[in-house]
Amino acid sequence: MITGKNYIGDTISATGNKTYTTFNPELNKENEVVYTEATQEEINEAVSLASKAFKEYRNVSGKQKAAFLNAIADEILALNDELVKTYCSETGLPEGRAKGERGRTVFQLRSFADLVAEGSWVEATIDTAIPTREPLPKSDIRKINIPLGPVVVFGASNFPLAYSTAGGDTAAALAAGCPVIVKSHPMHAGTGELVASAIIKAAQKTNMPKGVFSNLNSSGIEVGQQLVSHPEVKAVGFTGSIQGGRALLDLAAKREEPIPVFAEMGSINPVVILPKALQNRGETLASTYAGSITLGTGQFCTNPGLILGIKGEQLTNFTNDLASKIVEISPSLMLHPNIVAAYESNKGKALAQSGLVVVGKYENEVQSNYATQIITTVEGATFLENTTLHQEVFGPFSMVVQCENAAQLEEIISQLEGQLTGTVISDENEITQYGSVVSALQNRVGRIIFNGVPTGVEVCPSMVHGGPYPASTDSRFTAVGIGSIKRWVRPFSYQDWPNELLPDELKNENPLQISRSVNGMLTKNGVK
Amino acid sequence: MITGKNYIGDTISATGNKTYTTFNPELNKENEVVYTEATQEEINEAVSLASKAFKEYRNVSGKQKAAFLNAIADEILALNDELVKTYCSETGLPEGRAKGERGRTVFQLRSFADLVAEGSWVEATIDTAIPTREPLPKSDIRKINIPLGPVVVFGASNFPLAYSTAGGDTAAALAAGCPVIVKSHPMHAGTGELVASAIIKAAQKTNMPKGVFSNLNSSGIEVGQQLVSHPEVKAVGFTGSIQGGRALLDLAAKREEPIPVFAEMGSINPVVILPKALQNRGETLASTYAGSITLGTGQFCTNPGLILGIKGEQLTNFTNDLASKIVEISPSLMLHPNIVAAYESNKGKALAQSGLVVVGKYENEVQSNYATQIITTVEGATFLENTTLHQEVFGPFSMVVQCENAAQLEEIISQLEGQLTGTVISDENEITQYGSVVSALQNRVGRIIFNGVPTGVEVCPSMVHGGPYPASTDSRFTAVGIGSIKRWVRPFSYQDWPNELLPDELKNENPLQISRSVNGMLTKNGVK
Repeated sequence: MITGKNYIGDTISATGNKTYTTFNPELNKENEVVYTEATQEEINEAVSLASKAFKEYRNVSGKQKAAFLNAIADEILALNDELVKTYCSETGLPEGRAKGERGRTVFQLRSFADLVAEGSWVEATIDTAIPTREPLPKSDIRKINIPLGPVVVFGASNFPLAYSTAGGDTAAALAAGCPVIVKSHPMHAGTGELVASAIIKAAQKTNMPKGVFSNLNSSGIEVGQQLVSHPEVKAVGFTGSIQGGRALLDLAAKREEPIPVFAEMGSINPVVILPKALQNRGETLASTYAGSITLGTGQFCTNPGLILGIKGEQLTNFTNDLASKIVEISPSLMLHPNIVAAYESNKGKALAQSGLVVVGKYENEVQSNYATQIITTVEGATFLENTTLHQEVFGPFSMVVQCENAAQLEEIISQLEGQLTGTVISDENEITQYGSVVSALQNRVGRIIFNGVPTGVEVCPSMVHGGPYPASTDSRFTAVGIGSIKRWVRPFSYQDWPNELLPDELKNENPLQISRSVNGMLTKNGVK
Repeated sequence: MITGKNYIGDTISATGNKTYTTFNPELNKENEVVYTEATQEEINEAVSLASKAFKEYRNVSGKQKAAFLNAIADEILALNDELVKTYCSETGLPEGRAKGERGRTVFQLRSFADLVAEGSWVEATIDTAIPTREPLPKSDIRKINIPLGPVVVFGASNFPLAYSTAGGDTAAALAAGCPVIVKSHPMHAGTGELVASAIIKAAQKTNMPKGVFSNLNSSGIEVGQQLVSHPEVKAVGFTGSIQGGRALLDLAAKREEPIPVFAEMGSINPVVILPKALQNRGETLASTYAGSITLGTGQFCTNPGLILGIKGEQLTNFTNDLASKIVEISPSLMLHPNIVAAYESNKGKALAQSGLVVVGKYENEVQSNYATQIITTVEGATFLENTTLHQEVFGPFSMVVQCENAAQLEEIISQLEGQLTGTVISDENEITQYGSVVSALQNRVGRIIFNGVPTGVEVCPSMVHGGPYPASTDSRFTAVGIGSIKRWVRPFSYQDWPNELLPDELKNENPLQISRSVNGMLTKNGVK
């Protein structure tokens, strides 16, 4: 049952006066449960508990953390229909999507469980002593990754499960050994509370310290600001808008002790369609991209908002095909009236720019909270001059840029802001003539795709979900995949430390049987 | 021959009007060469060249980069006596130290050369496609570390070679594939220019792109500020004061595109001496620490500025022994009159604090630019209350804190700012009774040492030189050792990319024979 209250560790609390509700876009009305925003005292209590919990949790073994993460996955599945129904009622997304996202969330949790149960992720590195070295003896030094401390997680509006309460940021931070305080996303506070209850149950069942997890309700920006400013918070994970992420980054940078903020923000995900591909399969591509642009009502951070091609009849034909295919697709709901309003406003701003032409748009009337898709086009030179056209329009919107030639195509790419993804559509071998275009694209993105669509972010060790600013605030990390654990840890050295007092990962005998670098060689053998 | 001019790539340039000289602390007079500060135009030209060079240099093979790095080492050695003499004339440090630091610098360059020649450092990670997966096929995804772009390096006053022009930051950035622009340290501009000339020669001999390296003279803060603010600069490395590092961090955070700043800053490097160790070998420890505190006139970032013990006769005896041993040591030169002045000023500020008692200090008169060592002591409660006593006094100064008991010792440690190192001096087994003290210490430092001294930073894969703020601006990275290359790279994914167009590190056949993670298994085998 959803209470509308905060979880301060395993204590349910609602001492504040500020309340809010979530919204059902399908029924176009507010949901019933009333949520109470966390107070300053509740925030302080949650951070203080997390800080205390950290003293214990940082030393919890990988196997115990794995049990905790797997228990979270089990408890989320045990929420069953209540979770799916709440999810749908707060997002307007279909049941299939809810179940799919739940599956992804569970998979992420179990992937991190496997990672920490196996244990080699700590990157144990051992250089043994050389007492006879001249001119000075060499000490025994051993390095391991250790957790940073309490982490604050801001969930995404568009992924209430996989990028929110028990999403990638939380799973990675808990796996690393960091307690987590979630600033609940107000649009899916009920989904958030249910997932929080699952995490708390799992923590209790696996004897994790009280305060290892808290979930704080919040309808505005204050709770988040207070959390990011709190001296005992040591890192921040965020998925959302550039405006929101940048505000948190700035706040964290101004602290007496600045802390890392990993924010995964907007992206227009440029797609380059090369001429021969356009010629040979323009119509198929138009169908594929009509689907990709409208997938999830365009509410994916990897949505292809920008299509780049060389000007000419084929590009015109493709653009017309894309427009006609996309208007055949039935519009779908957006997550919230505010998101519809932002879509309309950003779309309006783009359309007001001189030179941007509408090629096709869904014209029939739609019900409240549905977004209507639109395809636009612009000349390369116009696009280059006007950076307003480079901004994301979150929703089923895409722009085809008609470049004069390959040189202008390259110039446009190198002028783009940082992006999560870049895609190249090429006929066999055609791409080899566009080496500098590909190189420019690589320099602006975190992931590059050949003959595919950017939507769909595989959860695997080789995935990079991040990229140059503003795709993310620190391109040196990924937000998706097990590599994302590195955001929440720091390397730590022991020098001449007694073997029996070292963590198991660094002991001579390698009791955990993990892969380690010993004097430069990767091995599972013990140290003699 | 030293020209006093800037290297803008391989062009020697001095178009500005602002000039300065370096200072010989031993002779107590200015050196002869006049240096011309870089102008805004020269700065822009250096960055523009670096940005152009990056397009080529990012694709230079590991073996070619290794040849470049080894050539830099060779050219530095070829500078021979001129380098050693210039070094000594600009620092007051003895010839042995110059040669030792040169050896370290050359070793670092060759270590990075070996790293990139071997090639596995890119952490190649391959997840092959599963076209038959349900409900959706799985793409082929391959990840590799790629360079960020032009890096600006600020050298340290106290290590003109190992942490400056061709020091750890530069070596790591060049190894990563990033062009480097050094903001030359004004106190050793001649040493800097000689090393810069060696880098330029090496770049020419190994056919590196023009602009892969530049060296800009600067006597104030403006050149550094302009470099950090330049949109085409993508990361910053700094070694120096907290004030200087924080100013650059703040500047980088305010950019339209914020960039990572790795600053290694101050530290007081707490040393905990446990009671039995104090009892059994207090006198020996006093000798050892008198040496460590005065090593290099206390001008090491790992200098032990804080010694923590449990109050009592033994701690008193140790403190007296330390004081009497340290005054027997002959004072030595500091690097520059400004550093002497800062030492005197910071020492004076500390000594003005109520409760801080001088136990022993060198009383005889000394010549100009020599620093006199001093040992002070304070009660634990006084130290806890007054954070001014927690601040670094850069030089041969140390403070013994008399803690009431183990609980106060733990409290003091947990109240300290972040530190590069923490040391525990313990008799056998004694440390096991101080688990929470050690745990608190671990949480405040980057490296923990057992029964040793913090001075001496081994260059090896397991070294962490960094730590929680303000020891460094990002504890997730080390400034020393081959792991420091990670500061200058970002992960990058290729999705469904044609094998022949992938970088060699990711090709099916593994032509470089590097270690890769293929579908979760570490292997040098090719992908079938």
